[in-house]
Amino acid sequence: MLDNIKDKIEPLNKSAMEEASKRLDNLIKPIGSLGKLEHIAIKLAGIFGKINNKIEKKCVVVMSADNGVCEEGVSTCPQSITAMQTINILKGLAGIGVLARHAKSDIKVVDIGINGKIEYPGLVNKKVKSGTSNMAKGPAMTKDEAVLAIESGIEIVGELVKNGYNLIGTGEMGIGNTSTSSAVLMAFTGLEPDKAVGRGAGMTDEGYAAKKATIIKALELNKPDKNDAIDVLAKVGGLDIAGMAGCFLGGAFYRVPVVVDGFISAVAALVAYKINPEVKNYIIPSHISEEPGFKHAMDYIGLKPFLDLEMRLGEGTGCPIAFNIIEAATEIMNKMATFEEVEIDSDFLVDMR
Amino acid sequence: MLDNIKDKIEPLNKSAMEEASKRLDNLIKPIGSLGKLEHIAIKLAGIFGKINNKIEKKCVVVMSADNGVCEEGVSTCPQSITAMQTINILKGLAGIGVLARHAKSDIKVVDIGINGKIEYPGLVNKKVKSGTSNMAKGPAMTKDEAVLAIESGIEIVGELVKNGYNLIGTGEMGIGNTSTSSAVLMAFTGLEPDKAVGRGAGMTDEGYAAKKATIIKALELNKPDKNDAIDVLAKVGGLDIAGMAGCFLGGAFYRVPVVVDGFISAVAALVAYKINPEVKNYIIPSHISEEPGFKHAMDYIGLKPFLDLEMRLGEGTGCPIAFNIIEAATEIMNKMATFEEVEIDSDFLVDMR
Repeated sequence: MLDNIKDKIEPLNKSAMEEASKRLDNLIKPIGSLGKLEHIAIKLAGIFGKINNKIEKKCVVVMSADNGVCEEGVSTCPQSITAMQTINILKGLAGIGVLARHAKSDIKVVDIGINGKIEYPGLVNKKVKSGTSNMAKGPAMTKDEAVLAIESGIEIVGELVKNGYNLIGTGEMGIGNTSTSSAVLMAFTGLEPDKAVGRGAGMTDEGYAAKKATIIKALELNKPDKNDAIDVLAKVGGLDIAGMAGCFLGGAFYRVPVVVDGFISAVAALVAYKINPEVKNYIIPSHISEEPGFKHAMDYIGLKPFLDLEMRLGEGTGCPIAFNIIEAATEIMNKMATFEEVEIDSDFLVDMR
Repeated sequence: MLDNIKDKIEPLNKSAMEEASKRLDNLIKPIGSLGKLEHIAIKLAGIFGKINNKIEKKCVVVMSADNGVCEEGVSTCPQSITAMQTINILKGLAGIGVLARHAKSDIKVVDIGINGKIEYPGLVNKKVKSGTSNMAKGPAMTKDEAVLAIESGIEIVGELVKNGYNLIGTGEMGIGNTSTSSAVLMAFTGLEPDKAVGRGAGMTDEGYAAKKATIIKALELNKPDKNDAIDVLAKVGGLDIAGMAGCFLGGAFYRVPVVVDGFISAVAALVAYKINPEVKNYIIPSHISEEPGFKHAMDYIGLKPFLDLEMRLGEGTGCPIAFNIIEAATEIMNKMATFEEVEIDSDFLVDMR
């Protein structure tokens, strides 16, 4: 299924983008003065194939999974937090629930690989396995498992699109997933550990050194092939990253924009981009994560976030905030007047171009 | 009235801020991981004197005024655009109208000094005079006129607060107002012209050099006293800047947050800050303007914007986008659960602090 879909991703609709650009240049404002709102409006035209677009329904997909590498002590949190916080997210008590409701966005929480049996109303069961294996001792998962997780992400986006959603956000919950994300980023880019690995919340100097050493060990042991995204993902990635990569691929295939949240989400976008660079055109960044590797992942893809909120929570929390700005971009296109329209309407010759 | 008000601005409520900080640190997330959303929630607690706040009604105040310095050719637009675009804003066809409606914000458009008689339903008449004089030939206005414009801004915020508004944005329309803003910024900070003066939209090298020369001439001729904010404003400022400075002072006096838009708005905030530095605590920044002087004005006050949209339209267009984020900050405080609340509720011990 992945092989089938990944080669069917189409380019953006160039003529709709040109038409969008032309209208934006004719609106009653100096050319380009609405900056990235204009860029977003043009991108949406390219994705949806028309210039006037409306965001109908929004959803943040939260991929929850556990990481075997936790047994190396890479996180200050116990692994059980993944399951517990997943429940809190489903209850609407965590950051993503509150911010999504504020943005009138739904959330879909997916068990893509939580360690242990977990059931809760609303939790989507796409469990590939109960957490990955410890990448410091061998591959985190098989290639088949990585592909299955990606396909789950694609499927979820497919279902959302079928149900009228046309703006998707990506989020995750998974203790240890900054370590897997750093490993994937380093495997693809050769970036040195100090630039790719972050301290997380309240990590000591010793803890940070050990985290870097674990990631280096996992890369040396598994020798992921940087030209084979599935190999990288399987050996040093995570099921949450794989599921989110599937969301980005699914967005590109079904032609809906998919929003990046923080570091883990950005690395998932990078995986999808490595599978097919065309995916980039369907991705919209949101905020600058405080994790040091984030910037490098985004630079590699060539995306520039527009929010600088010093956030580092994950869960997809940057997405609902970006949703409102993406909707603002559609409003600019749909509701601002052009010089010609104003001239007819008011007998004024208003032109500040 | 200004003298009376400016010394009555109270500090933020420290105990409400401490309580806010404490609750944020107990929410089910790593400490500080919601970054500037947390900073905003704490600031709102300090302004409103309680931790749970709700934004009831929002308004962007757009100050429209003409600048005599336009006769020096500092803008690529004719001066008549000020009146024309003011009408377009009132009609809801310009950027601020569209973005404000999207944010469920009202707008209040104020004629604080448009050149010529202008009437339109909804336009608030606070005209101090029909545009300032040419600062390259003498003072832009008298100190009394500057004070009158500031007082109009304070009055408008007072009326808004009386009518239940508790979040205010600042915007402007005034051809030539980047020149006056640069002059005010240079008068206060001694910043060199290359850092304080921008090119505007589509200005040639010659035009840019002439703009800088005009500003330098105005400063040399008028010799504004940097320790007397009213003197600076009167000699090389504008009525729009003065009106917006009044909004910031009014916000601080009536204890409601006032949001900065772009360069002109930031310079107005700087004027208010120079009148009473306590005003800073009631100001919330929004986006990073593309105008080079913007950053210096914000650094001087000590404010860091959270939106990087490459916008340079003015009119207050950054404010409605920021409003949504400020509301998100209130939601975090009002609706996220603490570790204790979750523990009671679920029999889980969820603690990732």
